[in-house]
Amino acid sequence: MPKKIILTGDRPTGPLHLGHYVGSLLNRVRLQDEYDQYIMLADLQALTDNFANSKQVHDNVFQVMLDYLAVGIDPDKSTFLIQSMIPQIPELTTYYMNLVSLNRVVRNPTVKTEIKQKKFGESVPLGFVTYPVSQAADISIFKASLVPVGEDQLPMIEQTNEVVRAFNRIYNCDVLIEAEALIPKVSRLVGTDGKAKMSKSLGNAIYLSDSADDIKKKVMSMFTDPDHVRVEDPGKIEGNTVFMYLDVFDTDTEEVARLKEHYQKGGLGDVVLKKRLVEVLENLIGPIRERRENFAKDPEQVRKILQQGTQKAEAVAAQTLQEVKQAMGLIYF
Amino acid sequence: MPKKIILTGDRPTGPLHLGHYVGSLLNRVRLQDEYDQYIMLADLQALTDNFANSKQVHDNVFQVMLDYLAVGIDPDKSTFLIQSMIPQIPELTTYYMNLVSLNRVVRNPTVKTEIKQKKFGESVPLGFVTYPVSQAADISIFKASLVPVGEDQLPMIEQTNEVVRAFNRIYNCDVLIEAEALIPKVSRLVGTDGKAKMSKSLGNAIYLSDSADDIKKKVMSMFTDPDHVRVEDPGKIEGNTVFMYLDVFDTDTEEVARLKEHYQKGGLGDVVLKKRLVEVLENLIGPIRERRENFAKDPEQVRKILQQGTQKAEAVAAQTLQEVKQAMGLIYF
Repeated sequence: MPKKIILTGDRPTGPLHLGHYVGSLLNRVRLQDEYDQYIMLADLQALTDNFANSKQVHDNVFQVMLDYLAVGIDPDKSTFLIQSMIPQIPELTTYYMNLVSLNRVVRNPTVKTEIKQKKFGESVPLGFVTYPVSQAADISIFKASLVPVGEDQLPMIEQTNEVVRAFNRIYNCDVLIEAEALIPKVSRLVGTDGKAKMSKSLGNAIYLSDSADDIKKKVMSMFTDPDHVRVEDPGKIEGNTVFMYLDVFDTDTEEVARLKEHYQKGGLGDVVLKKRLVEVLENLIGPIRERRENFAKDPEQVRKILQQGTQKAEAVAAQTLQEVKQAMGLIYF
Repeated sequence: MPKKIILTGDRPTGPLHLGHYVGSLLNRVRLQDEYDQYIMLADLQALTDNFANSKQVHDNVFQVMLDYLAVGIDPDKSTFLIQSMIPQIPELTTYYMNLVSLNRVVRNPTVKTEIKQKKFGESVPLGFVTYPVSQAADISIFKASLVPVGEDQLPMIEQTNEVVRAFNRIYNCDVLIEAEALIPKVSRLVGTDGKAKMSKSLGNAIYLSDSADDIKKKVMSMFTDPDHVRVEDPGKIEGNTVFMYLDVFDTDTEEVARLKEHYQKGGLGDVVLKKRLVEVLENLIGPIRERRENFAKDPEQVRKILQQGTQKAEAVAAQTLQEVKQAMGLIYF
């Protein structure tokens, strides 16, 4: 039996950070053995709210690829593809656009929230409003049956499946398949400010490409317990970013439990804790950084991996599009 | 100096009729000597409100092609292309979608009117709402500087030029060129019911593929002057469909003037007039029908013309898309 197809990816708007690592990258390293995994560098989607920074989006594709390879996503097991190089995706999107009403897409909760967050005001670009339809094409053109997404992205999978069902019904076929959301167990990593999820735009991220020095600086300025002024004061664990990170990244859970107890009693300084976290993170990111630098020294190899993956993905997309056109009776020659 | 590029075409929703002949086809036969003329069989656009009838749209492409060839549009002078076979059009549309706001497109007067006419109600398909953006891609991907359109389509040209200017400004280039509307002098041909413009959906059309019998039946039941009951009654010219048609199609203008005088005085029956119109129309459509039947006997030849034109058009579209991606800095390999 062929492996199930899984589609995942990122909008190349910047280098990847620990939030990506915990939330998706680690998962992808695991999933690539069990599934036929497609990883999309979603530059078209990134452009929907970065169209004026297209050159950066282009450059970020390579930066994100370095992150992927550095964390151990294996081009022999996973297929990397550049979205804008698969012309079948916009083609399929065009057909899908007739199967989704304007009202339906404007009601999409994810899009609604994002439009507010991004402060488009009166001038939301059409590309942004319609990206769930484009995403339906991304997923279904590869016949992915699994898509790892956060809970906030569930309406996207719903929209995809609505389109898939509408297409199969209207054209009386079973060309397209529905996808299932794969919701990761890991909760979102909070940013270094302890306030919101880690994100480039909030400036609270530790990147997989950060230097040892960057990591040190970011950890040393982390939010802990504002009432923990002197070493001898008892400190709070709840809402303490350093402990949140230790819980996620420190493999010596017994020692972390001991430190928590000590901290709560008083007599354990933030600096000691932060130094420990610096070490833990450097032990994690150090080897990633090193592999990243090695791949960066051979951009031709990286380009080749991207090119081969994209070619393979395009062949799959072309096959699905052909089936779609056949079902619609739109083959001319 | 290379010839100016003109883009024109039709939505293949049915065979072409005398309204098309007067309003655009005759013009195309004239324009093909002076311009580099691209004629688009706009199946993607037809699908925006005919997605459930895709097989018919497919078949109509060939029917419309027969009409084109039968009226004398020459494949050696004009380039015929099937829209859905130019993948660069949806690709370019995707980039354009980021440059047009939802509000802008919803305000488009042509789209607004059409949405009302087509009675979509609450479920206007996205494809229909966004078709002006797709049309901007149709026009600009061929770098057309002239587009023959009716006055009601002027907002489409405006939308195209807005996108073109936005693209050139944002990406600091001059890749795209603005288009000018070429508004035909001929006023719209009224339908056989004398009420509205000739249109398939109103069932008031005389087709270029109609048999002599069809023409006779349609003319004999034409709307004239309801108060002209007996032959000896004086009749009205105004609003008299038969005279409107004679004005357009009868080349013997002196005789038409004489008939008008006679009709107004009284003593000239509708049947005499209608018989004259039947003859005039049969003289026009007869040879078209014959050429059409000859082309229909050789579908391979028609397919070859379509295929060659589409291939030529795709090469032009690929070149423009490459320039577009270069301007955006989106070339990866």
